[in-house]
Amino acid sequence: MTLNRPFQANTPAQQSVINSAAYHNGVRVANVPLADLGDAWRHSDRFLWVGLYEPCEQILSHIQQAFGLHDLAIEDARNAHQRPKLEVYDDSLFIVIRTAALGDGGEHRIEFGETHVFLGKRYVITVRHGSLNSHVGLRSRCESTPNLLAKGEGFVLHALMDFIVDQYFPVMDALEAELDELEGQIFSGKFIRSVTERIYHLRRDLLGIKQAVTPLIDVSSRLTRSSSNLIPVDSRPYFQDVHDHVVLIADLIDSLQQLSHTALESNLALISVSQNDDTKRLAAWAAIIAVPTMIAGLYGMNFKYMPETEWVFGYPVTIVVMLATCVALYRWFRKSGWL
Amino acid sequence: MTLNRPFQANTPAQQSVINSAAYHNGVRVANVPLADLGDAWRHSDRFLWVGLYEPCEQILSHIQQAFGLHDLAIEDARNAHQRPKLEVYDDSLFIVIRTAALGDGGEHRIEFGETHVFLGKRYVITVRHGSLNSHVGLRSRCESTPNLLAKGEGFVLHALMDFIVDQYFPVMDALEAELDELEGQIFSGKFIRSVTERIYHLRRDLLGIKQAVTPLIDVSSRLTRSSSNLIPVDSRPYFQDVHDHVVLIADLIDSLQQLSHTALESNLALISVSQNDDTKRLAAWAAIIAVPTMIAGLYGMNFKYMPETEWVFGYPVTIVVMLATCVALYRWFRKSGWL
Amino acid sequence: MTLNRPFQANTPAQQSVINSAAYHNGVRVANVPLADLGDAWRHSDRFLWVGLYEPCEQILSHIQQAFGLHDLAIEDARNAHQRPKLEVYDDSLFIVIRTAALGDGGEHRIEFGETHVFLGKRYVITVRHGSLNSHVGLRSRCESTPNLLAKGEGFVLHALMDFIVDQYFPVMDALEAELDELEGQIFSGKFIRSVTERIYHLRRDLLGIKQAVTPLIDVSSRLTRSSSNLIPVDSRPYFQDVHDHVVLIADLIDSLQQLSHTALESNLALISVSQNDDTKRLAAWAAIIAVPTMIAGLYGMNFKYMPETEWVFGYPVTIVVMLATCVALYRWFRKSGWL
Amino acid sequence: MTLNRPFQANTPAQQSVINSAAYHNGVRVANVPLADLGDAWRHSDRFLWVGLYEPCEQILSHIQQAFGLHDLAIEDARNAHQRPKLEVYDDSLFIVIRTAALGDGGEHRIEFGETHVFLGKRYVITVRHGSLNSHVGLRSRCESTPNLLAKGEGFVLHALMDFIVDQYFPVMDALEAELDELEGQIFSGKFIRSVTERIYHLRRDLLGIKQAVTPLIDVSSRLTRSSSNLIPVDSRPYFQDVHDHVVLIADLIDSLQQLSHTALESNLALISVSQNDDTKRLAAWAAIIAVPTMIAGLYGMNFKYMPETEWVFGYPVTIVVMLATCVALYRWFRKSGWL
Amino acid sequence: MTLNRPFQANTPAQQSVINSAAYHNGVRVANVPLADLGDAWRHSDRFLWVGLYEPCEQILSHIQQAFGLHDLAIEDARNAHQRPKLEVYDDSLFIVIRTAALGDGGEHRIEFGETHVFLGKRYVITVRHGSLNSHVGLRSRCESTPNLLAKGEGFVLHALMDFIVDQYFPVMDALEAELDELEGQIFSGKFIRSVTERIYHLRRDLLGIKQAVTPLIDVSSRLTRSSSNLIPVDSRPYFQDVHDHVVLIADLIDSLQQLSHTALESNLALISVSQNDDTKRLAAWAAIIAVPTMIAGLYGMNFKYMPETEWVFGYPVTIVVMLATCVALYRWFRKSGWL
Repeated sequence: MTLNRPFQANTPAQQSVINSAAYHNGVRVANVPLADLGDAWRHSDRFLWVGLYEPCEQILSHIQQAFGLHDLAIEDARNAHQRPKLEVYDDSLFIVIRTAALGDGGEHRIEFGETHVFLGKRYVITVRHGSLNSHVGLRSRCESTPNLLAKGEGFVLHALMDFIVDQYFPVMDALEAELDELEGQIFSGKFIRSVTERIYHLRRDLLGIKQAVTPLIDVSSRLTRSSSNLIPVDSRPYFQDVHDHVVLIADLIDSLQQLSHTALESNLALISVSQNDDTKRLAAWAAIIAVPTMIAGLYGMNFKYMPETEWVFGYPVTIVVMLATCVALYRWFRKSGWL
Repeated sequence: MTLNRPFQANTPAQQSVINSAAYHNGVRVANVPLADLGDAWRHSDRFLWVGLYEPCEQILSHIQQAFGLHDLAIEDARNAHQRPKLEVYDDSLFIVIRTAALGDGGEHRIEFGETHVFLGKRYVITVRHGSLNSHVGLRSRCESTPNLLAKGEGFVLHALMDFIVDQYFPVMDALEAELDELEGQIFSGKFIRSVTERIYHLRRDLLGIKQAVTPLIDVSSRLTRSSSNLIPVDSRPYFQDVHDHVVLIADLIDSLQQLSHTALESNLALISVSQNDDTKRLAAWAAIIAVPTMIAGLYGMNFKYMPETEWVFGYPVTIVVMLATCVALYRWFRKSGWL
Repeated sequence: MTLNRPFQANTPAQQSVINSAAYHNGVRVANVPLADLGDAWRHSDRFLWVGLYEPCEQILSHIQQAFGLHDLAIEDARNAHQRPKLEVYDDSLFIVIRTAALGDGGEHRIEFGETHVFLGKRYVITVRHGSLNSHVGLRSRCESTPNLLAKGEGFVLHALMDFIVDQYFPVMDALEAELDELEGQIFSGKFIRSVTERIYHLRRDLLGIKQAVTPLIDVSSRLTRSSSNLIPVDSRPYFQDVHDHVVLIADLIDSLQQLSHTALESNLALISVSQNDDTKRLAAWAAIIAVPTMIAGLYGMNFKYMPETEWVFGYPVTIVVMLATCVALYRWFRKSGWL
Repeated sequence: MTLNRPFQANTPAQQSVINSAAYHNGVRVANVPLADLGDAWRHSDRFLWVGLYEPCEQILSHIQQAFGLHDLAIEDARNAHQRPKLEVYDDSLFIVIRTAALGDGGEHRIEFGETHVFLGKRYVITVRHGSLNSHVGLRSRCESTPNLLAKGEGFVLHALMDFIVDQYFPVMDALEAELDELEGQIFSGKFIRSVTERIYHLRRDLLGIKQAVTPLIDVSSRLTRSSSNLIPVDSRPYFQDVHDHVVLIADLIDSLQQLSHTALESNLALISVSQNDDTKRLAAWAAIIAVPTMIAGLYGMNFKYMPETEWVFGYPVTIVVMLATCVALYRWFRKSGWL
Repeated sequence: MTLNRPFQANTPAQQSVINSAAYHNGVRVANVPLADLGDAWRHSDRFLWVGLYEPCEQILSHIQQAFGLHDLAIEDARNAHQRPKLEVYDDSLFIVIRTAALGDGGEHRIEFGETHVFLGKRYVITVRHGSLNSHVGLRSRCESTPNLLAKGEGFVLHALMDFIVDQYFPVMDALEAELDELEGQIFSGKFIRSVTERIYHLRRDLLGIKQAVTPLIDVSSRLTRSSSNLIPVDSRPYFQDVHDHVVLIADLIDSLQQLSHTALESNLALISVSQNDDTKRLAAWAAIIAVPTMIAGLYGMNFKYMPETEWVFGYPVTIVVMLATCVALYRWFRKSGWL
């Protein structure tokens, strides 16, 4: 189980600095080497957007010095296993969000990741951990709407959160489809062992997503009411929109949790019904076989004076009686629902 | 399952603009083509009521320009799967409500829909999605009380919410009737497989309605305390009334959820009792058959010196003994409740 | 089930106006015909107390005009199925309370009713719906303490609520007695089907009472803190007393809900234990019968050379061996707790 | 069950007035007859402490007149079945606390009682109901620390609450010990019926204590923040201490409730495992007996031409084959865990 | 069970005073004998850090006098079984934290301890109870960063809480690993009795940790907002960090509680499936054996005229028919999933 460690670190071969660019009026005007970030930020009015992936200590230290970030935030960014949160410092915000995406395999495996965002006047730094699936395409989508990008940090943060939260919907769809399929199997009357296991894993996935999403309700709500000058007043409805989506996802998780629990209980009830039916069937067939066996036993007795055994038609009549009782029993069990 | 997609989109053949009319003193005075809405709103003091059904992008854009609506609200109205909410903008309100109605079939299938309302000075725009069952008759009901309609936007919003919320009651009645029927089946002692499945679907329906109704508690409560000039003070008791109804429905959902869970557990307990009874009955009959079989086996032994086999009445006496033990066992099991 | 419709309307033959009287200094001085109520209220300083039972539209309209009551409150009073609530209007209060009383039959059936109270300066109007059992005796009890009745509307409201809330206690006692009885049956080891059904109905009754009582916590608490001049400050400890009783009942409901759930689960566990015991007993007896049957089978074989069959004491020795194994098995099963 | 009536009234023979004394500087200086209480209180600066046990109406009326107590508080004190609460009157406090103590018998039966306290300037009146076990020793303990007693009413109230709350700890210890013992029985593999019944009673006891303790959280917290001049500011840390103990007990109750529920479920699971094991064992032994029975049946057939029956060693070889299959089956079942 | 007594007292042989030192600018400058603490604190500006382990009465009295600590805090420190809490006195804080560490044995036994902290101007006194595992290394870690230590009491408190909270993570990891292993066993299809017992103990451990951690959420949150001058404003983000960790642990506990409950239910469901499968298998094999037994019985009958018994090939044909029916039954059961 990986509740505590939602993802495996990737191989060190992967590149740490994904992107580091300066924007002017919402348009990318230059790539800025890491070493020049501090100067670029202090000596120009360009907006800087740096994207890192599981950076090493040195890179983080460099970034910290360049933008004057708080020790604790940098320590958090180094360590990937944070609870989603919003930390407000004097002149910057630090946001932790968990991402979720469907894995490439066909088994609806969910890949979790984590994105840490440093947001300050004229800069956004994103530090990504874990699965990259959920990040692909964000920057290009933002760059395609330069007018929004030009509105500043607050809107970039909104775009980022909106992008990440929207990616929970296909995950929820997949979990709903999984429950649909399980429902079908449960009520089809076949009690395959795997149904229980799949419900268990579904519930584990729901708990994982819940842990990722629930704290976002508070984060997005605080951004909506934020008095920080990094979050302009006219961006509030946008964060409210993110908030609404997060609450909708939380509602869905809650419903799926309750339904999956009912499914587990229904499964148990139906297994019992099935067992009951099988026991009845077993009893009925046992009776159908036991009666002729008993009759055969009777005529197997070695009494000297058993008139029936002397009769010419004793044997065939006995066979017919046996068959008749079997048929009668069969019909009777059939009628009373045991067969 | 369709928790996330509470309804299927209807065919595009259906008309998008259901109605677009101007009212004066609560009486419909003219139909206003879509193209003239902006002028009609700005240059007259008539009240406009536009009803749309799953409108296309162009119609929404037109409406947005005509009344100056917020981007985010329009984006929400385009996308049908919203959580019920109340969004307060500077000069308008945006309300999302989920509707529920019983389907036409006899199976108590619930059809969900969604109504989005834009409310501003002298206009109401409703955008409906999904099942239309729950909307039929609203406008004519409102037009039949022109004095209330003349009181302005706030009262139209109340009429609309009251109408939609009232339609939850027959749905709740149907779910109660369903639980009544299931109760009867559970306690009648027949453990048909379908009972469990129907309880499961009942619980799924309850979750769907809960998701639709719970957010309305907050929405109606905020309208009761609203300081917006769109909601006049003397309309507050009316929204309080809607609030009371919503809370009553939420209470009912809660009770039905708890009762249906108890029903599921009772079902399981009774299945176990039944299985216990059947096992006992099986055991009793097995014993009744096993005893004469064993006696018959005894006299089937080939010992040379078995005095009983030589007796003239050995055979009939044995048969009588067998019958007697069977009858004795039968009575004993009957007395001890195993048969 | 009647969660939504807690009672059946009574026959129209029953009288609508139960009482309509004027009081002076807490003493009944005159009966006032319905037609004169408005004048009597406006032109004298007498206190009016009108008691209605499921009144028709005309009577309600008349009352509304006489005392100038709010449209919505009158609409609520017409419709019996309200959630308990307190509505504060400018110069009057409207209170809805659900009543509960044990039915006359011996089956602890609970009869629910509803009392609506309009309270204003110098008048109290009560509108009762459903079972009258829970109302009998209120007015005569009030009239027997004229000094309290003379203190005005607030004290009459307190007397009324106190009276209604006190009637929940015998209902709770009956439900506790029912659970006691069920407990006895569950732990006595007989798993009669009816126990499960009775627990189910107990839980349904508890939910019904909970729906009636829970909203009263808020109603009584708001009356304790009320700033309305209809509720004098020195009556607050009295409403606090009602509040304490309501909370005590809610506590009891909660405990009974939890205990009844544990009882349901205990029942299930004990059924399983019982089934286990029966299975073991069945297995033991099957073994005791199977062993001599097998031995008998051995000596039923038709081998030419079976020395034992030739012995004079072969048969009695075999019988003794069979009996000995049966006794040995019986003892062994007895010792290991299977019998 | 006695949730509603936590204890039986004692016989009237028991003395009503337990103690009635005046204190000066924390030292008992005189016993004061009931009749002189009013004068003693008004005309001296001595502190009065009166202890009553299930007093009759007259005594209560006398006390009420002597100290000018509120009607409602006196009515509550007469009636023993109150929810723990703190009532603040103008110049006095009225506190209801439930007491719990282990009964003298060895069965961990909990005896509940109730203590009502009237606290005013220079007087404390305690009215006890139910079991006296939980009161013995309080006064002598207080009198042994005259410096604290001299500090006034607030400290006496603290001593009293501290004393009563401390007595819950041995009760909790006994319940924990009971769960420990049940745990041992559940996991020892014997499914005795009484385990379920004892878990049920444990849970009932926990609910009883929870009802007694939960309201004390609020009572003690309000005393900590009280602005009444009866509760001096420097006594607040002491009431905070009581509050901490109450919360600790509530935590323990919560844990025991959850653990006992898990124990009930574990019990059910283990019963099922046990049943499964027994069914397998039964099946295995049935097979071991059925196979030689079938072989014996074969050679019991009366065919004229059955070569084996003519052989000299037919019989012993058959016996050996039978034994060999039995042993082989036994080993196979043993290996596969069915035996 | 030891919910109430989370640990056993250690032997008195262990040393009570672990350390008692004075610090200047974050560097340890002297060891201070207990007797000199009061003077050293009053007459110098050095920072004092005293570490005690289950101290006796005398030592605690001495410490109380030296630093002027509150009676109640000292009484709490004497008694090890406190709920985690933060007590604010005029010039000092008293904090109770529960510690948890994995025992040395391989069985993931959790050892609980308790640390009480007195924090005042220029002094920190820690009183440890129970397992020392969770304390080892704290002081040396603090002394290795003199710059932080020099910042004063607030930072020492942070270091201490951070250290203790961090030690919960390996405990949580061990519990997660335990659940992982149980999961594997549950879904592997073997229903060993110990799984249920281990889930039970896992849940008990989770409750123990929950009791220790949940109150810390409030404690750390209050420290973050504290207005005490002992907690400097620039240390708030550090306490916020501790708070985040505590909430993360609480989240994990919640998830593990829910998952372990689902595991218990899944276990029960799979046991039922397994029982169902075994019952079917038993029935199938019983049928396969019963049919040839019945046929053999038939030809064991002693009728004079049974043509088959006279046939030369009667016997081998019968054997072949028996085998054929057995094989046919076997295939049929195989196909229908009973075998």
